[in-house]
Amino acid sequence: MATEQHDLPTSADVFSAAQNIAGQVHCTPLMRSRQIDALTGANLWFKCEHLQKVGAFKARGACNALTQLPAGTRRVATHSSGNHGAALAWAAATRGLACTVVMPETAPRAKRAAVAGYGADIVICGPTQEDRERALEAVVADSGAHVVPPFDDRRIIAGQGTVALEILQQCRERGFAPDMVVAPVGGGGLLAGVGLAVAALAPDTIVLGAEPAGADDAQRSLRGGVHVTAQQPQTLADGLRTTLGRRNYAVVCHTVRDVITVSEQGIVDAMRLLWTRTKQLVEPSAAVALAAVMEHSARFRNRNVVAVLTGGNMDLDRVADLFAGGEETP
Amino acid sequence: MATEQHDLPTSADVFSAAQNIAGQVHCTPLMRSRQIDALTGANLWFKCEHLQKVGAFKARGACNALTQLPAGTRRVATHSSGNHGAALAWAAATRGLACTVVMPETAPRAKRAAVAGYGADIVICGPTQEDRERALEAVVADSGAHVVPPFDDRRIIAGQGTVALEILQQCRERGFAPDMVVAPVGGGGLLAGVGLAVAALAPDTIVLGAEPAGADDAQRSLRGGVHVTAQQPQTLADGLRTTLGRRNYAVVCHTVRDVITVSEQGIVDAMRLLWTRTKQLVEPSAAVALAAVMEHSARFRNRNVVAVLTGGNMDLDRVADLFAGGEETP
Repeated sequence: MATEQHDLPTSADVFSAAQNIAGQVHCTPLMRSRQIDALTGANLWFKCEHLQKVGAFKARGACNALTQLPAGTRRVATHSSGNHGAALAWAAATRGLACTVVMPETAPRAKRAAVAGYGADIVICGPTQEDRERALEAVVADSGAHVVPPFDDRRIIAGQGTVALEILQQCRERGFAPDMVVAPVGGGGLLAGVGLAVAALAPDTIVLGAEPAGADDAQRSLRGGVHVTAQQPQTLADGLRTTLGRRNYAVVCHTVRDVITVSEQGIVDAMRLLWTRTKQLVEPSAAVALAAVMEHSARFRNRNVVAVLTGGNMDLDRVADLFAGGEETP
Repeated sequence: MATEQHDLPTSADVFSAAQNIAGQVHCTPLMRSRQIDALTGANLWFKCEHLQKVGAFKARGACNALTQLPAGTRRVATHSSGNHGAALAWAAATRGLACTVVMPETAPRAKRAAVAGYGADIVICGPTQEDRERALEAVVADSGAHVVPPFDDRRIIAGQGTVALEILQQCRERGFAPDMVVAPVGGGGLLAGVGLAVAALAPDTIVLGAEPAGADDAQRSLRGGVHVTAQQPQTLADGLRTTLGRRNYAVVCHTVRDVITVSEQGIVDAMRLLWTRTKQLVEPSAAVALAAVMEHSARFRNRNVVAVLTGGNMDLDRVADLFAGGEETP
């Protein structure tokens, strides 16, 4: 299917989304750490979306999508490795809608438990994108559910973009405009939304994506100019294993400067730093923006950088494995 | 040595301490979780001292003590299982003073690393209170250091009490007075300081201590009316293994309503809840106040309760052991 222009979200959609979801999601705080600034050489602000409803920015998009459902919708459905599923389950519950979430068998238990906790039905499937889509089609055929995709959706992209409206406002209140905003990229809902908002309101601010080197389809797509639609992701950042969506790619191409990749060790190091210095429990995917700043420090030195901490949902018993061996000296 | 009245801190000392340390420590946020409220039946506010300088309320007392040193002091020293040591090392470094910290061999590595990171000298000793005191005496004999005790000290108690001034102010700004303030108790610096401040400013607010059942000297002291000065602590809450100090006991007796004990499983459950619901990385000792609310829920139902989250410093590779087995259903 070709990308049709009218099909793509615009910055106006982001502004509308902010109206749609006002009062239903949190305006999350910006946080700083002088110690992390000293270690990275950048002036870093962390946008704390792990403190968002359901513990992830995904609450924004899901909430926005449910304000624009086709009349008569009784059940919504999606596929998700976790946070979008929990967000949709939560948003559906608040509106008295039924919800089915297709989840890969590799999804963290904590994320499955969250989806179940909000009362949604769960269908387990294989780990690939195709597995997920096939399972979701079966759900729709069976139940007539309205699908709210995890990222390749105009309403979702617009909803996620509201995080950038808050970032720009919060920076303004502190008397500066950010030089850069860095957002992790998996399917690209967040990155595309941030790109739209920043392009409209702060065209001098550079938007950068950050992704694991083991799931680098967004970098290859953006740098190569051809949308890479398949990959075999190898990363502990479970939220970033998806490939960039069609609409997401189209938006990112004209609003995002570059996508930076980071190593697995870089993700663990950044996560450890966030845990120990800010005492904020962020999940591996959320540490990827800081990992990018650390592994490409020359690019960020002395710049005002906002890094989006995307979520805080993970299996606590995996923590020791992640941090085994590496001892940090403060 | 008998307790002499003039030797005890007063609420005026707490007010002075607030002046002394203003601008040097953070006014930490109060945080809520509707999910935890729903689970406990109480209206809970968490005072986030894990977001304090050095990651613990101990920064307050150490900072206050160093504003009142004998003339000519060049080196300060203390014994500490961790957070007071880090706090003193930090406060000394900011004033260009040398610092020695006696630490038991059982102290978490993260806390040792923090003390070393602030540039203090570390002396390792055995695990008992007597081991610590003997090692500290040797340091003083050797270096002439001025001792800043971890809790049994007028300046320290007054400094820790400033947390309660903030709590009362923050509650006032939200339009209520807390029915109860619950603080973990080890040596009793925090609990005595909070007791003094609340007794002076909000006499209708009940102050409660919370401690592990495996280190219940404060409860036995307060309920029995005789100061228990020795115990064999058995608890994972490494910050609460000390016995109530002499001055602390004297103050607690007339300012604290009761001390509640909690089980080890209760501490782990409370910590897991704080990690998963608030995304705040608090150490085991910090979860003891919430554990008390959970294990004695009838006492707190429908009351406005402030629980002090005392610190966030721990070895991350211990996490899996702590959380092994227990699966939480949201």
